[in-house]
Amino acid sequence: MVSKAKKIVALSGGVGGAKLAVGLAEVLTQDELLIVANTADDFTHLGLRICPDLDTVMYNLAGIQNTQQGWGIEGETWQFMQQLGKLDGEDWFLLGDKDLATHTVRTQLLAQGENLTDITAKLFKQLGVAVNVVPMCNQSVSTQMQTDEGTLAFQDYFVRRRCVPVVSSYQFSDIELATIQPDFAAALADEALAAVIICPSNPFVSVEPILSVPGVREALKKTTAPVIAVSPIIGGQALKGPAAKMMNELGMPQSATAVAQHYGDLIDGFVIDSVDADLQAEIEALGVACIVTQSIMKTQQDKIDLANICIDFAANIKGHRV
Amino acid sequence: MVSKAKKIVALSGGVGGAKLAVGLAEVLTQDELLIVANTADDFTHLGLRICPDLDTVMYNLAGIQNTQQGWGIEGETWQFMQQLGKLDGEDWFLLGDKDLATHTVRTQLLAQGENLTDITAKLFKQLGVAVNVVPMCNQSVSTQMQTDEGTLAFQDYFVRRRCVPVVSSYQFSDIELATIQPDFAAALADEALAAVIICPSNPFVSVEPILSVPGVREALKKTTAPVIAVSPIIGGQALKGPAAKMMNELGMPQSATAVAQHYGDLIDGFVIDSVDADLQAEIEALGVACIVTQSIMKTQQDKIDLANICIDFAANIKGHRV
Repeated sequence: MVSKAKKIVALSGGVGGAKLAVGLAEVLTQDELLIVANTADDFTHLGLRICPDLDTVMYNLAGIQNTQQGWGIEGETWQFMQQLGKLDGEDWFLLGDKDLATHTVRTQLLAQGENLTDITAKLFKQLGVAVNVVPMCNQSVSTQMQTDEGTLAFQDYFVRRRCVPVVSSYQFSDIELATIQPDFAAALADEALAAVIICPSNPFVSVEPILSVPGVREALKKTTAPVIAVSPIIGGQALKGPAAKMMNELGMPQSATAVAQHYGDLIDGFVIDSVDADLQAEIEALGVACIVTQSIMKTQQDKIDLANICIDFAANIKGHRV
Repeated sequence: MVSKAKKIVALSGGVGGAKLAVGLAEVLTQDELLIVANTADDFTHLGLRICPDLDTVMYNLAGIQNTQQGWGIEGETWQFMQQLGKLDGEDWFLLGDKDLATHTVRTQLLAQGENLTDITAKLFKQLGVAVNVVPMCNQSVSTQMQTDEGTLAFQDYFVRRRCVPVVSSYQFSDIELATIQPDFAAALADEALAAVIICPSNPFVSVEPILSVPGVREALKKTTAPVIAVSPIIGGQALKGPAAKMMNELGMPQSATAVAQHYGDLIDGFVIDSVDADLQAEIEALGVACIVTQSIMKTQQDKIDLANICIDFAANIKGHRV
């Protein structure tokens, strides 16, 4: 009997997660890797269903990501947006002419009754990406931000208001109605599961929705595989996005340590950047294995290196409850 | 008491109609002109509500029409279509990146409950076009073509199958549920109505839907204003579109005379092109006033000239039933 390949599950938000996803996809086979993307910041805009994190992961894996912007497609044009502006349309959310095709096809297939998993698989196949990426669930969940400007839908907060409002809390609407995506559930229950890697994504609005899908936390506690996370906070700052600002507003220290504390007993290992080397001891004091490495992914090699470091790190620490 | 301005109503399909509409808009004030566009070839595609004739009229009046294509916007780009093709999307109907904005805004406003008249007015305003253009009705009507390939929705026949199928008949689905657009109804009943001009559009699939909206034929018969039509058939051929081919398939001679006969006692006057001068006598023998002129509109001046000719012609013939 052939021994079953190891299986690694990566939980990803947008930009930072997508970079590590690229590294993992380079060093693992298609069967060995399942990437699970946050879909709680998906929204319907101009009649189009937009899945920012799934798309960022997809464009990065397809090698067509717009590296300057950090989202969208390279060589993008903006004729649609310009004309939309002339027509007094809602132009606060930038949709490139190429990017529009993704949302249009997805919206049409959803209207035809296909689920987001199948649609995602179809889009990946068309872009020639042989990596298994699934949404955290097939149902619609939407992050709502409680702020000093009132309750804002996530993209209203994130894009339209550019993360300016002060966040007091957040909720994932309809998360209780969501069902863990079947491949995700199967992978977490798989005896061959070797590690769960929480990518360097926003712990609150990118990772927490995935963890909050009913059954996910329980499955993560049940698995004997180690769960490790890569800190999205480096030197007290997020490389991108409002994670550090939100930590401050939520009354947490802006530090990698606070992220490790936030994940609590869910994680067995934590990866921090070299600039935070002095935090290693206090993180280990939390009962979490901790390694220090260069974690900023600028080049393709950086992504591959961090992927290998995460995989080796997981292999060398015991999973929780073992 | 100030005498009320004369009122002219023009019935228009796409390209040819739009050109005459431009001429009429040049020589008449905003209050004097109402352009009514066919909406029976409107359709929903990729989730977008597309109104080809309304848009062609709008882009022509805004002076942003793509003169090479005869439809769409000048300086258009095709990034969306190219990406759509890569994603295996339905790419048989060409949607330019700029043009997409029109359909997106319209679809969104329709979803918000606005009617097509108000949406059209909003789009025209945004494009800076001070001309009154209304759809024939606010309800959805769809032309169905009976062909040797079976029943085809109009755009399937017109665009996807490039008018190749042989047409045996056609219907306007749901036309019986349509209500004549209120401004259109008011203009036809207006004492100041000076003329109804049927533009050089396809008599079957562009003009006939407008005439078939419940109440339109009756109103045209009731008005004392002359109704005149400009022949879309010149030298036995249509300048654009399948009108001549359809006449042949429907068992009619391919001639301007046959168009005049088709309109029958609905019209009081008929404008034919110089190349068809020899048909003038046989058309007049039908009991319809007929003038011969250069009717091909290549330049802006051609459009203005034909508009003036139509207005003068109408002013010089008595309306029916007078």
